[in-house]
Amino acid sequence: MAGYVSEAVIKRLPAYYRHLKELEKEGIHQISSQGLGNRMHLTASQIRQDINCFGGFGRQGYGYSVSGLREHIGHILGVDRTHRMIIVGAGNIGRAVALSDSFPANGFETVAIFDNDETKIGMTVGSLTVQDVAELKRYLDENTVDIAVLAVPVSHAQRMVEVLCERGVKGFWNFAPLDLKVPEGTSVVNVHLDEGLEILSFRMLRELA
Amino acid sequence: MAGYVSEAVIKRLPAYYRHLKELEKEGIHQISSQGLGNRMHLTASQIRQDINCFGGFGRQGYGYSVSGLREHIGHILGVDRTHRMIIVGAGNIGRAVALSDSFPANGFETVAIFDNDETKIGMTVGSLTVQDVAELKRYLDENTVDIAVLAVPVSHAQRMVEVLCERGVKGFWNFAPLDLKVPEGTSVVNVHLDEGLEILSFRMLRELA
Repeated sequence: MAGYVSEAVIKRLPAYYRHLKELEKEGIHQISSQGLGNRMHLTASQIRQDINCFGGFGRQGYGYSVSGLREHIGHILGVDRTHRMIIVGAGNIGRAVALSDSFPANGFETVAIFDNDETKIGMTVGSLTVQDVAELKRYLDENTVDIAVLAVPVSHAQRMVEVLCERGVKGFWNFAPLDLKVPEGTSVVNVHLDEGLEILSFRMLRELA
Repeated sequence: MAGYVSEAVIKRLPAYYRHLKELEKEGIHQISSQGLGNRMHLTASQIRQDINCFGGFGRQGYGYSVSGLREHIGHILGVDRTHRMIIVGAGNIGRAVALSDSFPANGFETVAIFDNDETKIGMTVGSLTVQDVAELKRYLDENTVDIAVLAVPVSHAQRMVEVLCERGVKGFWNFAPLDLKVPEGTSVVNVHLDEGLEILSFRMLRELA
């Protein structure tokens, strides 16, 4: 994937990946840009443009190889490697992430979960035991961690970033309701669940109008 | 809010709402477009443009009234009314939504939770008891429900929409990994948690390159 790729194309990559995985499950080996477009509610020409943009993936006679394209996009997304994740915050969201089957199925493995609440420390979450956040620095010195899931109150989130960055964590998946600032060389995706509900409320109101 | 408003402006509304709530908490009564812009990483002129777009909110001498603007945007978003939600699927995500404090604090009240799994039916989730999904139709006949949270496997999600729409549910907050199709007059927001992680992985890989 060379050169500039627009944010819109990047945001569509996971949807491509998802649809191609579904096609594989359905036993479909080849798909035309028209066929993939119908499925994804995009035009055939947009599909061709996007896939050209990803680079280095040719179209054969009858269309694209489903598994070939799925592997190619998986590689671009980096989901063909394993990511070691820790979860900071063992509340409802932290526990839900820890217990999910779908993240490890995509190579995102939760290796530890931390909290500062004495009633949560020692609690079992799936195959993990909630550790005292006071142990976090030591843990990071002794273990490789790629991604930190922040499921802490908004007042703690930014402070955690500093501790985690200093010890080599390069990715942040943030559920606290703020737009996290991360230093250069690290990446963040903010999940604002509340905002999704507010957008839904807005759309419902417009439908009524 | 009259006329056409771009999807980009709509998507920024919850962030305005969040920042204005924070300002209120900090005891700040007035804010200039420059001040709000700094906070939101937007230019002052973009802030003025957006707020003009929301319609009907004037700027006073020293800037905007924080609580006035927060109320105005809250009204546009429809979060000044109560939304009755049911959750279909009492797995990790369904339970996390049911147990959250922040959704009810914004007027999104979970009134019931359903599952088809006998080991989950009868289970207590906060103040609710998981009901058999076989009871869903009867429940909808007897109760008003605005929003259904779909936290079911992908194979069940689309089918649930039909049942729920027939009985007057107008909003869907979907956590199943598909782009839900909903009939005209109803609204949907899809939350693709997996895709957020994939985008994070993609960004981390580009930082390494």
